[in-house]
Amino acid sequence: MTGRLSIVGLGPGGPAHRTRAAEEAVRNAEVVVGYHSYLAQCNDLTGEHQTLVPGGMGAEQQRADDAVAAAADGFRVALVSSGDAGVYGMASLALAAVAALPSGERPAVQVVPGVTAATAAAALLGAPLARDFACLTLSDLLAPWEAVEARLRALAATDLALALYNPRSSGRPWQLGRACELLREHRCGDTPVGLVTDAGRDGERVTVSTLDDVDVGEAGMRTVVVIGCCATTRLQDWLVTAREVTP
Amino acid sequence: MTGRLSIVGLGPGGPAHRTRAAEEAVRNAEVVVGYHSYLAQCNDLTGEHQTLVPGGMGAEQQRADDAVAAAADGFRVALVSSGDAGVYGMASLALAAVAALPSGERPAVQVVPGVTAATAAAALLGAPLARDFACLTLSDLLAPWEAVEARLRALAATDLALALYNPRSSGRPWQLGRACELLREHRCGDTPVGLVTDAGRDGERVTVSTLDDVDVGEAGMRTVVVIGCCATTRLQDWLVTAREVTP
Repeated sequence: MTGRLSIVGLGPGGPAHRTRAAEEAVRNAEVVVGYHSYLAQCNDLTGEHQTLVPGGMGAEQQRADDAVAAAADGFRVALVSSGDAGVYGMASLALAAVAALPSGERPAVQVVPGVTAATAAAALLGAPLARDFACLTLSDLLAPWEAVEARLRALAATDLALALYNPRSSGRPWQLGRACELLREHRCGDTPVGLVTDAGRDGERVTVSTLDDVDVGEAGMRTVVVIGCCATTRLQDWLVTAREVTP
Repeated sequence: MTGRLSIVGLGPGGPAHRTRAAEEAVRNAEVVVGYHSYLAQCNDLTGEHQTLVPGGMGAEQQRADDAVAAAADGFRVALVSSGDAGVYGMASLALAAVAALPSGERPAVQVVPGVTAATAAAALLGAPLARDFACLTLSDLLAPWEAVEARLRALAATDLALALYNPRSSGRPWQLGRACELLREHRCGDTPVGLVTDAGRDGERVTVSTLDDVDVGEAGMRTVVVIGCCATTRLQDWLVTAREVTP
């Protein structure tokens, strides 16, 4: 007997930016698997009738395997991530684990999208991602830094607005500064930069600055850094990217 | 007296992928402004006590101005878009219109993020946007095609997964084919391609193909085209992008 795996994006913070489909998938699950802070993020939806399987940071493959195994055993399982589970989230690991099962043992699967950190941050800043943009992680856990830097250089030269995920942590203190340095090779020093930390959560912080003046020390693991492009201007307290591209 | 303007992303389709904050903003509005199909998308939230201001396609500046004027007149206004209002949506026009008002006449403003079409499409395809990706519109209404093509070339060479918005319409029948041609200069012909039309709506259609074999005629105005990168593979019926970047 096979169950059902829902890979669920909880959105950026509390209940306000969660979708109905995400709430339903968590409420209807018999087993809820997730990094402990993501389980806390949906603890208003779970109860004693459910089995909660918390995981530690970094143990992502384990969480994916646990969730898939429980679904293959016949349970209704929700594997939760903050933001959108398909963007730097658990979806790819979990789908690969399902695909590796013999065909008769594969659970039904649905991926439930959520509001991803980039657009949640953009909404707090105004409309900096109003035209073309790219999402890029500065983490070098799953990529050599040279590969990250090569992408950054190419994007800097392409004049897209950027949302940088995982910009900085205690173990990776210099990457964001280096990224700003690379960006300044192609973009003006007064290019608007927005830092959004803990969007939709207690302690939400929004700072607007420029490539020249940004204080990279303000960024942490839960910050999204938004970098403007040529068409991005500061209007009142907002960062706004025009939708027109002039030749 | 000044009111309040909420710029609201309704998500990709019906109520399932709408956030609570979006629903609340529409329910609490005295005036709801939007393209007529977006008003229809939230007609379960509106009633006879509200003033609905529908607009035609293309009349986006007019809708933004209408919404801002009503909010400046003291009303609680919701300006609605499908997806995320900050991604190819109404947010930048509306914020620019607010910023242009004398400071004493500016309404309070909130941007309510939504699930954007790229991640909604990705969820139906599996996890093709699991690492770095870019969103690019193929519309040449607000940009010369040469500028669109330059961005496409740069992104094709950067090996990011891509979500192409507005890939094709009756007035723009050849751009998607040309985009695939450009992509094939940098990516293998068997690069996975997913077409998602009307995500979360009646008539939802999902097709998986490759750069060599994609039938561009399947795409329309409400299609998002997702193009894989080197790390994207087809696993069962899913497109899955690995989160590792190999040197």
